[in-house]
Amino acid sequence: MVIVMQAGASEEDLAAVLDRIGSLGLAPHVSRGEERTIVGLIGDERPVEDGTFEALPGVERVVRILHPAKLASRDFHPEDRVIELPGGARLGGQEICVMAGPCAVESAEQLREAAEAVRANGVKVLRGGAFKPRTSPYSFQGLGEKGLLLLREIADSLDMAVITEVVTPQDVPLVAEHADVLQIGARNMANYELLKSAGSAGKPVVLKRGLGSTVDELLQAAEYLLAHGNEHVALCERGIRTFETATRFTLDINAVPVLKQLTSLPVVIDPSHSTGHAPLVAPIARAGIAAGADGLLIEVHPNPAEALSDGAQSLDPAGFASLMDDVRRVAAAVGRSSA
Amino acid sequence: MVIVMQAGASEEDLAAVLDRIGSLGLAPHVSRGEERTIVGLIGDERPVEDGTFEALPGVERVVRILHPAKLASRDFHPEDRVIELPGGARLGGQEICVMAGPCAVESAEQLREAAEAVRANGVKVLRGGAFKPRTSPYSFQGLGEKGLLLLREIADSLDMAVITEVVTPQDVPLVAEHADVLQIGARNMANYELLKSAGSAGKPVVLKRGLGSTVDELLQAAEYLLAHGNEHVALCERGIRTFETATRFTLDINAVPVLKQLTSLPVVIDPSHSTGHAPLVAPIARAGIAAGADGLLIEVHPNPAEALSDGAQSLDPAGFASLMDDVRRVAAAVGRSSA
Amino acid sequence: MVIVMQAGASEEDLAAVLDRIGSLGLAPHVSRGEERTIVGLIGDERPVEDGTFEALPGVERVVRILHPAKLASRDFHPEDRVIELPGGARLGGQEICVMAGPCAVESAEQLREAAEAVRANGVKVLRGGAFKPRTSPYSFQGLGEKGLLLLREIADSLDMAVITEVVTPQDVPLVAEHADVLQIGARNMANYELLKSAGSAGKPVVLKRGLGSTVDELLQAAEYLLAHGNEHVALCERGIRTFETATRFTLDINAVPVLKQLTSLPVVIDPSHSTGHAPLVAPIARAGIAAGADGLLIEVHPNPAEALSDGAQSLDPAGFASLMDDVRRVAAAVGRSSA
Amino acid sequence: MVIVMQAGASEEDLAAVLDRIGSLGLAPHVSRGEERTIVGLIGDERPVEDGTFEALPGVERVVRILHPAKLASRDFHPEDRVIELPGGARLGGQEICVMAGPCAVESAEQLREAAEAVRANGVKVLRGGAFKPRTSPYSFQGLGEKGLLLLREIADSLDMAVITEVVTPQDVPLVAEHADVLQIGARNMANYELLKSAGSAGKPVVLKRGLGSTVDELLQAAEYLLAHGNEHVALCERGIRTFETATRFTLDINAVPVLKQLTSLPVVIDPSHSTGHAPLVAPIARAGIAAGADGLLIEVHPNPAEALSDGAQSLDPAGFASLMDDVRRVAAAVGRSSA
Repeated sequence: MVIVMQAGASEEDLAAVLDRIGSLGLAPHVSRGEERTIVGLIGDERPVEDGTFEALPGVERVVRILHPAKLASRDFHPEDRVIELPGGARLGGQEICVMAGPCAVESAEQLREAAEAVRANGVKVLRGGAFKPRTSPYSFQGLGEKGLLLLREIADSLDMAVITEVVTPQDVPLVAEHADVLQIGARNMANYELLKSAGSAGKPVVLKRGLGSTVDELLQAAEYLLAHGNEHVALCERGIRTFETATRFTLDINAVPVLKQLTSLPVVIDPSHSTGHAPLVAPIARAGIAAGADGLLIEVHPNPAEALSDGAQSLDPAGFASLMDDVRRVAAAVGRSSA
Repeated sequence: MVIVMQAGASEEDLAAVLDRIGSLGLAPHVSRGEERTIVGLIGDERPVEDGTFEALPGVERVVRILHPAKLASRDFHPEDRVIELPGGARLGGQEICVMAGPCAVESAEQLREAAEAVRANGVKVLRGGAFKPRTSPYSFQGLGEKGLLLLREIADSLDMAVITEVVTPQDVPLVAEHADVLQIGARNMANYELLKSAGSAGKPVVLKRGLGSTVDELLQAAEYLLAHGNEHVALCERGIRTFETATRFTLDINAVPVLKQLTSLPVVIDPSHSTGHAPLVAPIARAGIAAGADGLLIEVHPNPAEALSDGAQSLDPAGFASLMDDVRRVAAAVGRSSA
Repeated sequence: MVIVMQAGASEEDLAAVLDRIGSLGLAPHVSRGEERTIVGLIGDERPVEDGTFEALPGVERVVRILHPAKLASRDFHPEDRVIELPGGARLGGQEICVMAGPCAVESAEQLREAAEAVRANGVKVLRGGAFKPRTSPYSFQGLGEKGLLLLREIADSLDMAVITEVVTPQDVPLVAEHADVLQIGARNMANYELLKSAGSAGKPVVLKRGLGSTVDELLQAAEYLLAHGNEHVALCERGIRTFETATRFTLDINAVPVLKQLTSLPVVIDPSHSTGHAPLVAPIARAGIAAGADGLLIEVHPNPAEALSDGAQSLDPAGFASLMDDVRRVAAAVGRSSA
Repeated sequence: MVIVMQAGASEEDLAAVLDRIGSLGLAPHVSRGEERTIVGLIGDERPVEDGTFEALPGVERVVRILHPAKLASRDFHPEDRVIELPGGARLGGQEICVMAGPCAVESAEQLREAAEAVRANGVKVLRGGAFKPRTSPYSFQGLGEKGLLLLREIADSLDMAVITEVVTPQDVPLVAEHADVLQIGARNMANYELLKSAGSAGKPVVLKRGLGSTVDELLQAAEYLLAHGNEHVALCERGIRTFETATRFTLDINAVPVLKQLTSLPVVIDPSHSTGHAPLVAPIARAGIAAGADGLLIEVHPNPAEALSDGAQSLDPAGFASLMDDVRRVAAAVGRSSA
């Protein structure tokens, strides 16, 4: 941590800062420049609360040096982490892990049709929403537990793993009982009670980046999971909010290699939500793999025009088969493989 | 709803759109332009799911005409709504409603000192956090139920109402038992399970705008509360995420008059979180009142440099007294009053 | 400047950084922490190009300590600057300086009507566009020199000063001949050739913040003007691009007190462009004054529905008279006056 | 264009809208819904100024249906356009067009070294800045005409084409004399005088997207070039401003396939500026090609740590050779080729 004093800060102001540093059990390192005095803080700055120094008189600015998410950092765990899933899928391994299925489980027929279509293309992880966070209270809110049971049953019949979203701490045990991977959605990335609960659920978690959250905050959210005992965490870039309105969100493709630098947790992208338009899903999926992503979350519906949610961004089976061909070729070009 | 067909859409594409409209029990209104055919949809478009038409061949774009949040709209409830609170405060009335106190309840002493300081300036609603959503898992997470009891006890002794944050559905009954107003924080604006729960808790709610959420989405989140039976909802603009880094967030001051147009729910601003720096709190508080806000949420700490959270943006008692002087003058200038 | 070394940086990496510091005539200050070594740079860091250290092996991050815009900083010029204009207006003084008139000069009649309407409300500075930067090549592009002459003539007849936009370096002499204040628009804030030219034109400049530019970049753009000899520079916050679409732009109200801290240059706001809707102009004008702005830029048209540009955000004379009443009251509430 | 009337709009309000439509030589199409009346406008809406209807009483909202940039649209020119350059490069063809070289021309030696390094990897277009738009007035501003002459001489000696930035209308003839392609930088995307001038310069133009500009605005800026007679225009996505600070800008990868849908102009990306960090350039270059981009703009410096600008994001010759290997493999995976 570096504390920058104001141009007009007094010696008393400086003394108060040094006192405060001492009271935290840390050591100061004072550097007097021509226009500003700066104070470096020797020791682990992570436990120091934001605002500790900013509120002192004469302090202009405080800059953190160490990333606050220690367990999630590559410094702490240099080797790439791999999450093994039932059915043989591996998240973070050499092979690209594609997780595909409908946005929402609507019925046994719809889910089976979607699942068979993705399974036929080599997909080993079935995605589908049973508990749906919807912007409008009047939208379809999901089948709940019944949807979970359908996911489990149909995935088992096809030898697939299940990933599904959990939206509230109370549901974590139920979802962890039926699913192989818990998904934490973008709107819940900073739902810390949910993170604490999912952190101790004993199942892998795919954590989506909040639509208004930085890469740093995503890593700190992952830190909640890791600090509560869950080692099997993957991160998902799914588009952020920007001024551009041609697409639903803006996929932050830069975040893929940035995350691979900062952390050894697997990184996947969600080209369906980040674009909002089916014709854009394949190009963005290819881009994500080319940038180094370890996997994809893709929405597939047997008949997108009849979907109860996210029809505009869902691929039909033919579109998905074509996307998988693309993914295979791009994966090979970057030294990876794909089912 | 207006459906814009692609330039090259066929008559079959158009027929499929008209069929779909009919199957929803609505009537179409076709308008053939020189370059595009557009189809208006007569009837209540609100129950139509997003994506219903976008996924049909030949459809270029779909534009909604009606705001999806009906109960929250001023069309539905034209007169300004006023929320009466114990202790005589009114949210949405002629008098500006200032809610002030520490970011987090740290101890009985700290809370009492802060509460007395704000009470001495006429404040009738004590704010303070017992359950704290914190970006880092290593930060102080709040005193929980003990904090709630302190808030209640100290507020009662000063004849004040209590507003405090609730972060998970399970805690709603407990918080509703001790507090007069439930606060839903920015990170939980789209935590729909929490909204449903708070919607039926029987206590007024102050709903903060998500840091990556639009005004429309804020109104739809309020709609969850209203649709679950809660009529006493106020909205809070607390700053959004933008590229500007000089401040912690960017207060969207435009949102104040925009919300006053779109809805009759009371609107307050939070100048503490939206700036992140104590010296900016008073100017932004004045700006919010001048723009038409009905109230303020302000962080006050007896000694900001010792605060366990948000010290950089907390006012000390002297700073708060000065802010209240400012607020009184600006309130009078716009035909309002302030304690 | 503080240089943060990577966790795994070698002694050779550090030596290369120290060498480089020496070659720039500056002195290093090394501070070895437990997890990172950081190097402070003693001396004036401003001439050091971005990237000088980032490209060296072992460097993780570089943090600048001094604001790069020295002449524009309040450190350099602590007292508030005031710009005196012909006709008695003062920009940055105790009195709020309102600059009002049509978006574009369309005809002598239209301009005269608008000018008389604003003059009748005490306005001493007439705004109007002769050279119009328009998003579409098919939109009205302004009357050019003819518009300048009309501005001058009508302003003179009403004893007003003229502010008008200049869009290209070649036009600076012409505009400076006829106008009292040059306006540099948001789209040209980083048009550095224009800034250099306006910097030596001998007339005051109102510099608008770019819609995707930070406060820091605005100050650096002002630095171009100051470094080229122009001391009479005012800054204008006119709304930035964010994800919110309810308004045309998002006025960054926080920027008003932030700029007043960082610089002694006068600060004005443009509530017309930052909202894009006439009914929002008065509330935002009030907010700007309440936050500490020194002036306003307001679009007024005798008949907004007939305007050749920006009709949706232009006030008619009655709306403007009402806004001026508001401004007077809010100005008084914050210890300022207004015509 | 669709005009949405307010819920409470009167028949007189509607009549005034219809009158106005008639006065513009267009025909209305009225559709009375249960809650709102909407009016469609039959005919070419493009010449209608923004604000024409918004300023009329009773109008709630106006939605444009046709894209305002007609000449740039794929509707108008369905087949992909290809720009032939001297030296055999083709922008928009089957082969990926890589344009590489130093950010700024610093000296004959530096430029020759960089040019030889990129030429050795098959690059046929040399980039390099002679006129540099710099954020700080104290930064290196480029060699100007001398830089242009060096670019021409060294490119000729290696049988390469030259692309270089032009920053002000006055310089267009000079730059067009020496360069094969004019680059318009992000900060000048909305410098309409420059666009008009470059539109009639008789040389191809690569137009970069403004950092706060939408895809729509980029197309309208291209429309300026096309409307002034220049058919040889390529678009460049170079990163937009978002709240994320881990990278200098956020490359909007979605914009690549979006632009390919909306326009037949070639689309390139600039992974150097959009990331700001050399280690991120290759992954993002791969992503851009995978998403369908037709080319790349890459900064290469013989010794990035000595660069006078953009050292942090410049590749050294070895890094560039490795990037070209990547590009070749990914290009092949998406059915393209690369030198």
